[in-house]
Amino acid sequence: MSCDFLALAQPGVQKLSPYVPGKPVDELARELNLDPAKIVKLASNENPLGPSAKVIEAIRGELVEMTRYPDGNGFELKSKLAERCGVTTAQVTLGNGSNDILDLVARAYLAPGLNAVFSQYAFAVYPISTQAVGAEGRAVPAKDWGHDLEAMLAAIDANTRVVFVANPNNPTGTWFGPDALERFLSRVPENVLVVLDEAYIEYAEGDELPDGLKYLARYPNLLVSRTFSKAYGLASLRVGYAISSAQVAEVLNRVRQPFNVNSLALAAACAALDDAEYLAEGKRVNDAGMQQLQDGLRALDLNWIPSKGNFLAVDMQREAAPIYQALLAEGVIVRPVGGYGMPQHLRISIGLPQENARFLEALAKVLARG
Amino acid sequence: MSCDFLALAQPGVQKLSPYVPGKPVDELARELNLDPAKIVKLASNENPLGPSAKVIEAIRGELVEMTRYPDGNGFELKSKLAERCGVTTAQVTLGNGSNDILDLVARAYLAPGLNAVFSQYAFAVYPISTQAVGAEGRAVPAKDWGHDLEAMLAAIDANTRVVFVANPNNPTGTWFGPDALERFLSRVPENVLVVLDEAYIEYAEGDELPDGLKYLARYPNLLVSRTFSKAYGLASLRVGYAISSAQVAEVLNRVRQPFNVNSLALAAACAALDDAEYLAEGKRVNDAGMQQLQDGLRALDLNWIPSKGNFLAVDMQREAAPIYQALLAEGVIVRPVGGYGMPQHLRISIGLPQENARFLEALAKVLARG
Repeated sequence: MSCDFLALAQPGVQKLSPYVPGKPVDELARELNLDPAKIVKLASNENPLGPSAKVIEAIRGELVEMTRYPDGNGFELKSKLAERCGVTTAQVTLGNGSNDILDLVARAYLAPGLNAVFSQYAFAVYPISTQAVGAEGRAVPAKDWGHDLEAMLAAIDANTRVVFVANPNNPTGTWFGPDALERFLSRVPENVLVVLDEAYIEYAEGDELPDGLKYLARYPNLLVSRTFSKAYGLASLRVGYAISSAQVAEVLNRVRQPFNVNSLALAAACAALDDAEYLAEGKRVNDAGMQQLQDGLRALDLNWIPSKGNFLAVDMQREAAPIYQALLAEGVIVRPVGGYGMPQHLRISIGLPQENARFLEALAKVLARG
Repeated sequence: MSCDFLALAQPGVQKLSPYVPGKPVDELARELNLDPAKIVKLASNENPLGPSAKVIEAIRGELVEMTRYPDGNGFELKSKLAERCGVTTAQVTLGNGSNDILDLVARAYLAPGLNAVFSQYAFAVYPISTQAVGAEGRAVPAKDWGHDLEAMLAAIDANTRVVFVANPNNPTGTWFGPDALERFLSRVPENVLVVLDEAYIEYAEGDELPDGLKYLARYPNLLVSRTFSKAYGLASLRVGYAISSAQVAEVLNRVRQPFNVNSLALAAACAALDDAEYLAEGKRVNDAGMQQLQDGLRALDLNWIPSKGNFLAVDMQREAAPIYQALLAEGVIVRPVGGYGMPQHLRISIGLPQENARFLEALAKVLARG
C-alpha cells in the first residue's frame, strides 16, 4: 500500500487544473488518421508566415555549440532588448516564454493569504500561476468582454500583491487606450505589482493602444511582459521577457532557473529583433486575414468580439463545443473557450489566406448541417 | 519614492542566492579580450564531443515548425523514454533541464514549515529550490566527501517531504552502490519523496552504481531524475526528465509550465536516445580523459576525490580561488567550488585530450609560480 502523493502535495497544487493548449496537428492526425499536411491549425495564435530565414540562419550558426550550457545571463539578448526598449539590462528578465515570466511573478510575490486580481475572460495562466502558489485569484467581471479597470481597482485590497492586465486581451482581443491605462496606474497602490501583458502588442495600430514601456519611469510598480511567440514567430523556442524596475527584475532573476532560456532561443530572438521585414509582413498578413475572416463571418451571419490581436473570438450563437468537434473532423483546429466561461464562442487565429478560406468553408459546411 | 519590492517578495525569495554557473567562454573572452577559439572551458561538465550529427539533422528537420508551439504533452519523447525505461508514459515528467524537475518537486511538495534533506557538497539547486519555496533545507554532513546515507535517514523528521540524493554526486563525483541504495530506500518513510538524481549515471561502469529505475516498482516514493545535458550532449537545449509513480508524475505535470520543453529540444532528445554510438564514444573519451587527468595531477603531486562522473574535484592543498583566477588568465575555465564549502578544491570537467593537456599545462605553469 503506497502513500497518497496527491494529498501530500501543496493545497494550491491539489486544486490545480493544468492549462489546456490548442490541439497539436500531429495529435489530431493520429486520432483521426488524417494527413498532417492537410490539417489547418488556427488554434494557438501562432504566426502563419512560418519561420524567418534570418532566424533559421542564426539557429544553424548556434548548433555547433549545442553541448554547451546557454549563457545564463542572456548577455546579448538582454543588451539588444535594453537598447530597443530604452532601459538598462538590469531591468530585463528573460523567460522560457512569457508564461515563465507570469510564473516567476507569482512565485516571487504571491502566497497563501495574498491575492492577485485579473479580469474575467483573461489569459488562463494568470489564475493557474496564482493557484499553483496557493494564493487567491480574483476574477473581476468583464465589461463588454474586456477589462473593467474601475472594477479591478475596486477589487484590490490590503492583501493584493499583483494585478494582471492584458492589452490586447487574449482570448477576447479586447483592448484599452492610453488614457485608461494612465488612470488605472495612477490609482493602483504603489505596493501592488501591475503586470501588463503585451503578448500581442505588435499587432496593434499606431496610438490606439498605449506602449507600456512609456509608463515604467513614472510607475516603478509596473512590469511589462512581452513574448517572441506571436509576431516574432518563435513559439516553438520559448522566449518571453519582462521589463520592470531593476529591483523587481533582480527579484525575478533570483527565482528564475539559471538556464531557463535555451541557447537556440537566445540566438533566434536576437535575430528576430533585427528582422523588421518579417514583423511588417506578419502585420500585413494579419490585417488582410482579419478583413477576410470578418467578411466571411458576416456572410455567415455571425458576430465576433472586436479584436486588436491576431485572432477573433466568434459568437456561434449556440453551444460551440459540437461545432469545434465537427471542425476537427474537417481537419480544421480552432480553439474552444468554454474553459474561459465562453461556451458559445470559438477563438480563431488569423492564418494565411488559404487557411482562413479553409476555415470559412469548413464552418459553412458544419453550420449548414444545422 | 517607490516601494521596496524586495521586502514585498516572499521570505524564502528574499534570502535566495541565485545559482552561479560556470563562466561562459564568451564572457571570459569579453572580459580579458581573448580569442574565444583559444579558450578551454572545463567548467560545466559539458560533453566535449560536440553535437551528434543525428541530433543536428533532427533539429534541422524541425526548424520549419518554428512558429508552432511545442507539443505540450511531449508525446513522442515520452513514448520513447517510457519504452526505454520500462515504464508507462504516465510515469514520465519532462523538464526544461533536470533543474526544472528539481524545481517542480520543490513547488509541489515543499513549503514553509516543511523541510528537504540533502547532503553537504550536493548539487546547489537542491538548497536553492528548497529555499525558493520557503522550506527548510537540511544539509547533512558528508562522509569522505560523499553522502552519509545513515545520517541522512536520521535527519528525516515528521516535516520532511523530500530527500535529494545524487548518484554519482556533483560536484564531488562520489557514489554509492546498490546495497546502500536498497538499505536507504527501505528505511525512508513512505510519505517522503526520494529524488534520486542520476544526471551522470551514463558515465558509470557496469554494476558499481545501482540503476534507480529498478527500484521504482517496489518504492512508490522514489523519483529518478535524469538529463540530456551531460552524456547526451544537449546542455544548450534544456531537456531533463523524471520517472516516478504515475501519481507523482501527475502532480508534477500540474505544476509544470505547459510548454516547458521547446520543440527543438524534444526532437533532439528523441534523436539522441537513438544515437548509441555517440553515447559510447563519449564514454570512451571520458574514460581516457579521466586517466589522462589523473596521470597529470599525480605528476603535479595533487590529489582528487575519486569520481564516477565526467569531472574531478581536485584538492589544491591551498586556497583555490587564486588558482582559478590565474587559470582564467591562461584562457582555461574550470569551476571553483568555494560556494559548496570546498574552498581548496577546483572541479575540472573532463575534456578532449588536447583540452585536458591545455589545462594540465596551464595548471603546472600557475603552480610553478608558487
